[in-house]
Amino acid sequence: MRLAELSRRSGVSTASIKYYLRSGMLPPGRRVGTTTADYDDGHLRRLRLIRALIQVGRVPVATVQEVLRHVDDDSLGRTMRLGAALWALPQAPEPDPADEAVETARREVDRLLEALGWTTARELGALSPSHRALVVAVATLIRLGYPGDAERLAPYAELMHRVAVRDHDFLETYPSEAEKAETVVAAALLFEPVLRALHHLAQEEESARRYGLE
Amino acid sequence: MRLAELSRRSGVSTASIKYYLRSGMLPPGRRVGTTTADYDDGHLRRLRLIRALIQVGRVPVATVQEVLRHVDDDSLGRTMRLGAALWALPQAPEPDPADEAVETARREVDRLLEALGWTTARELGALSPSHRALVVAVATLIRLGYPGDAERLAPYAELMHRVAVRDHDFLETYPSEAEKAETVVAAALLFEPVLRALHHLAQEEESARRYGLE
Repeated sequence: MRLAELSRRSGVSTASIKYYLRSGMLPPGRRVGTTTADYDDGHLRRLRLIRALIQVGRVPVATVQEVLRHVDDDSLGRTMRLGAALWALPQAPEPDPADEAVETARREVDRLLEALGWTTARELGALSPSHRALVVAVATLIRLGYPGDAERLAPYAELMHRVAVRDHDFLETYPSEAEKAETVVAAALLFEPVLRALHHLAQEEESARRYGLE
Repeated sequence: MRLAELSRRSGVSTASIKYYLRSGMLPPGRRVGTTTADYDDGHLRRLRLIRALIQVGRVPVATVQEVLRHVDDDSLGRTMRLGAALWALPQAPEPDPADEAVETARREVDRLLEALGWTTARELGALSPSHRALVVAVATLIRLGYPGDAERLAPYAELMHRVAVRDHDFLETYPSEAEKAETVVAAALLFEPVLRALHHLAQEEESARRYGLE
């Protein structure tokens, strides 16, 4: 398809598309003349992701460029490619080292990961923003006096692992490595609100089943 | 305990505690003299929740008052009491009726709830902010060209229902209705980040298991 159709089908203005082409966020189209190029579904997909990052995730353009560099990096194995793309997204702030609850949370998270046998998560530890985010979230529970011990968290971790197994099964249906990495980044932004809403709706449903609707 | 100890143990200033007492967000202590009152663990628990709402959830004070009114409303059955308290929290914006993706999303959510047999969720429909949030989140997926059909969502919904079953099992260990409602509100704010971080960490773990750590 030509630029005008790409713009129409993606909902992104031609001016923005030209900017994404110049900055390398969108790969060049196939040249079919001195001034025209042909674009395909890969371009459409990439624009969809850029829209998701900028419009829904409010991710700064410089960060989008960094995320996409990792998405396109064929030198990385799959785990590192997905990780690098996700880790380039804006992350939660570092835990406050002066906060006693952070130390307690770190210990509980470590006990949790050991009990679950999540060896990679233990090995990567605070290198992973997800690990840091978990420590921060558990520290908040503990600081405010709510239970955040490994025993309480373990069944939730096991259920979230089953969610992650689904995610990866679904990911394997995508043909290319770049497409897989694109999907992981989009899901981190767009699918989390779906899961949260499903959780809340399920809580209401379960409440009505147990106690009636009153 | 006296006011000074309540302040020390809750981490809330005596000035703020006095304000919460005057505004009815905190029930009065037991009078033990003309100028002193005695406070108990219920007061400590309530202050913990107020801190969670204001400091972590950044919920406006007027909204906190409304949430707490529902938490304390003994005239409601359990489902409605938990629902009213949660629904008083700040919610996602209404779906845009001019957006075609919203209509598609509504249809897919309806098909999903029918397939799952979530009769209360269907019955309440858009009355529930969780239902609206799900429609909005699924519409965003669809608008950007990602799959948001009932078949794709169903296994996730089933896993989130298992999470909700755990939530309710845990809730039943709390003695009073007010304490149950307090815990549900706190969990909506404080436990969601824990679940999200567990999900991301589980994705990394699963990736390393399938493809190695490279």
